[in-house]
Amino acid sequence: MRRGLSQFMTPFRIIIIAYIAAMALISFFLYLPVTHKPGVNMSYMDALFTSVSAVSVTGLTTIEVAETFNYFGIFFIALAIQLGGIGIMTLGTFVWMLFGRRINLSQRMLIMVDHNQYQFSGMVKLMRGILLTALAIEAVGALVLGTYYIQYFDSIGEAYYQGAFGALSAFTNAGLDVTGNSLIPFANDYYVQFVTVLLIIAGAIGFPVLMEVREYLRSKQDNFRFSLFTKVTVSTYAVVFVIGIIGILLLERGYYFAGLSWHETFFQTMFTSATARSAGLSVLEVSDFTIPTILFISGLMIIGASPSSVGGGIRTTTLAVMFLTIRSFALGKSDVKVFGREVHPEDKQKAFIVLSFFAVGLFGAVLSIAAIERGNQAVEFSDIIFETSSAFGTCGLGTGITSSLSDPSLMILMMLMLIGRVGILVFLFSVKRKDTKSHYKYPTERMIIG
Amino acid sequence: MRRGLSQFMTPFRIIIIAYIAAMALISFFLYLPVTHKPGVNMSYMDALFTSVSAVSVTGLTTIEVAETFNYFGIFFIALAIQLGGIGIMTLGTFVWMLFGRRINLSQRMLIMVDHNQYQFSGMVKLMRGILLTALAIEAVGALVLGTYYIQYFDSIGEAYYQGAFGALSAFTNAGLDVTGNSLIPFANDYYVQFVTVLLIIAGAIGFPVLMEVREYLRSKQDNFRFSLFTKVTVSTYAVVFVIGIIGILLLERGYYFAGLSWHETFFQTMFTSATARSAGLSVLEVSDFTIPTILFISGLMIIGASPSSVGGGIRTTTLAVMFLTIRSFALGKSDVKVFGREVHPEDKQKAFIVLSFFAVGLFGAVLSIAAIERGNQAVEFSDIIFETSSAFGTCGLGTGITSSLSDPSLMILMMLMLIGRVGILVFLFSVKRKDTKSHYKYPTERMIIG
Ligand SMILES: [K+]
Ligand SMILES: [K+]
Repeated sequence: MRRGLSQFMTPFRIIIIAYIAAMALISFFLYLPVTHKPGVNMSYMDALFTSVSAVSVTGLTTIEVAETFNYFGIFFIALAIQLGGIGIMTLGTFVWMLFGRRINLSQRMLIMVDHNQYQFSGMVKLMRGILLTALAIEAVGALVLGTYYIQYFDSIGEAYYQGAFGALSAFTNAGLDVTGNSLIPFANDYYVQFVTVLLIIAGAIGFPVLMEVREYLRSKQDNFRFSLFTKVTVSTYAVVFVIGIIGILLLERGYYFAGLSWHETFFQTMFTSATARSAGLSVLEVSDFTIPTILFISGLMIIGASPSSVGGGIRTTTLAVMFLTIRSFALGKSDVKVFGREVHPEDKQKAFIVLSFFAVGLFGAVLSIAAIERGNQAVEFSDIIFETSSAFGTCGLGTGITSSLSDPSLMILMMLMLIGRVGILVFLFSVKRKDTKSHYKYPTERMIIG
Repeated sequence: MRRGLSQFMTPFRIIIIAYIAAMALISFFLYLPVTHKPGVNMSYMDALFTSVSAVSVTGLTTIEVAETFNYFGIFFIALAIQLGGIGIMTLGTFVWMLFGRRINLSQRMLIMVDHNQYQFSGMVKLMRGILLTALAIEAVGALVLGTYYIQYFDSIGEAYYQGAFGALSAFTNAGLDVTGNSLIPFANDYYVQFVTVLLIIAGAIGFPVLMEVREYLRSKQDNFRFSLFTKVTVSTYAVVFVIGIIGILLLERGYYFAGLSWHETFFQTMFTSATARSAGLSVLEVSDFTIPTILFISGLMIIGASPSSVGGGIRTTTLAVMFLTIRSFALGKSDVKVFGREVHPEDKQKAFIVLSFFAVGLFGAVLSIAAIERGNQAVEFSDIIFETSSAFGTCGLGTGITSSLSDPSLMILMMLMLIGRVGILVFLFSVKRKDTKSHYKYPTERMIIG
């Protein structure tokens, strides 16, 4: 019996079970009336959806967080965001360490998997570094935003409360808000937008990148070499960020941006391009955009952020490997090269798997929700594509249909948020029982493809 | 100068130029008033679109073929379909042979590329076999349908004309019709539907499969071994065909099929599942379906038919490799195995490239057309997805928006039809100049993916 359980409990399954357990636990607290504001009547489905959305740092909600929960409820939401954002396993291990236990191999394995890492050595150090860096960034963000917010809010306490939650939600790319209307109240405050974008990017650029930058700053070497991962993910992130700005500008020029000043246009566009990649906070109503822009932003949400970050999506590296592989094929080269390095065949295979799974999953989810909501007049087809991309990419932007969706649709979205947060590769790995190496080999035979 | 041209003219570029030349030439004839019925006034854009649609065996049209062209015009359309369906290079080589020339290596190379083949030997024999088989199937189809049509049409000539064009359009999966209303007049004639589905499948299952089946029938061996390609493509084709039937039934039960008898429901579903994979003929108005079904059929059109067939799409083998790779990864296996053979790593890479290119291309095209047609009230967003999938998959089913689209949108669709017919891999190969082998090698470095 014991043996059966230890056979069942692969590291990948433990990760998923940990996320599901956290979602269930938080949903329980969010369902309790003691976490609600007076007069709120909430279904368990709403509580569960809020919890899944918070732990998966997505940000879609069927209810209005600020109107529904009291400070006690917001505390649980903040906890859920912190858990999901920095990684349940990292936090868990930290707590474990506080209690003085030694970290054993299988626990290191868990952290490694949770952050998609491939090396054992220095994992605990890395994990401690991640946690400290994350908390430091959040603290600075809370201080900067909170102090600035004093002019906006009645009390200093409220200002720092708003600043702290805003910084937490931005850095973890959770996308939830306690302002009651995301960042739309700050649509003309470029300082708030700029600080928030910096926090969003710090969370979405990937923890290994932050660690390498820290190491670079400390080493003071002229010949410091950034890893291939850092080079690829940062450059892809930057390129998609710029393409996002240009695309939204071109698509909404003469539509949404008609009548806005150049600086309003620029800042709202920049913020939207940054937030669409995984953050989900917003300085405008996405539903005011025209359908092509809705589709374009869906694409940005599908691309998502860096792997091993608080963000989701197919991830920047997958997109980069897609384009690099197409390019090298078109040029008649058999290897895929970038930044003076060759991409590992296994990494190409992983990118293929992520893309395939995401395409099939997104298609199936959009189809199912479209069929379920066929009679629902409040829901446009383009909204379904947007909402589904937002959930699978754990972005959290929405056109406002979430609360109109029926329970089966919400369950599909929750499933997407879970897989999106856990990551497609970890999710697939969890299917496997124990090591089942195949000891036989078949002859290879070519086929015609495409 | 001579050397410069021969440098430029890679086999892949010749293929594409041949298709474009055929499209241009046929468009010229279709624009001439001598090919039109009395009173028809046609723009060159309509003629070009019809020609591109015919040569790429897609079947989307901005005009009604039966009302626009006289028998002379229909002859050119039939020629275009035959050229595009069986492959310009195959037909060209056949003509070459008729004139007694020997087939040299670079010509064999062309046929090889046109049919995605990898072996030189027996290529001419294969090509002759393909042509004879195709013509034989078309002739039998024309005879069977024509004879049966005598009861429907006023003259025997008209019956065989309709039968011949119907068989040609079905086998080449061209999807064009001279009935004036696709196969909707035969919505309750199961004999016509059954024969047409057989012809559609014969064209879409892939020429190598037909050749192997012929060889199998001739060899009369008990231990005849079908190739991995044939096994994978036929089984995938069959599975998607059945899923198509079940999906359409489930999605339209209580909607389109409400009030229809079980046999009407079954035959219309079966026909739609078969035609959606690349044929484009129809026994019903697709626009009568609800939006989820429109999306589902878009998916079937994107999957498409077998490689090296008259059909398009990402192709059955790409879909199979996608699922097999996901499966083997989830089971923790490094190799992808199927039917007692291992899939070649290069074939996995090709499937990845086809999927990536198709995804990016489809997204870009839908986005562009949605932006171009933003003010067009006649065009729904779901129609744009359907139309674009239909063009890229060279399927030709439509919800009736083609004639409402503006010229820039039509040009995007023509580009998709060309790439769809030529094939993504050949299209990408055409980018490359001459052999540019890279003689240097970079070190491999791992990244985090997904
Ligand atoms: K988010
Ligand atoms: K077709």
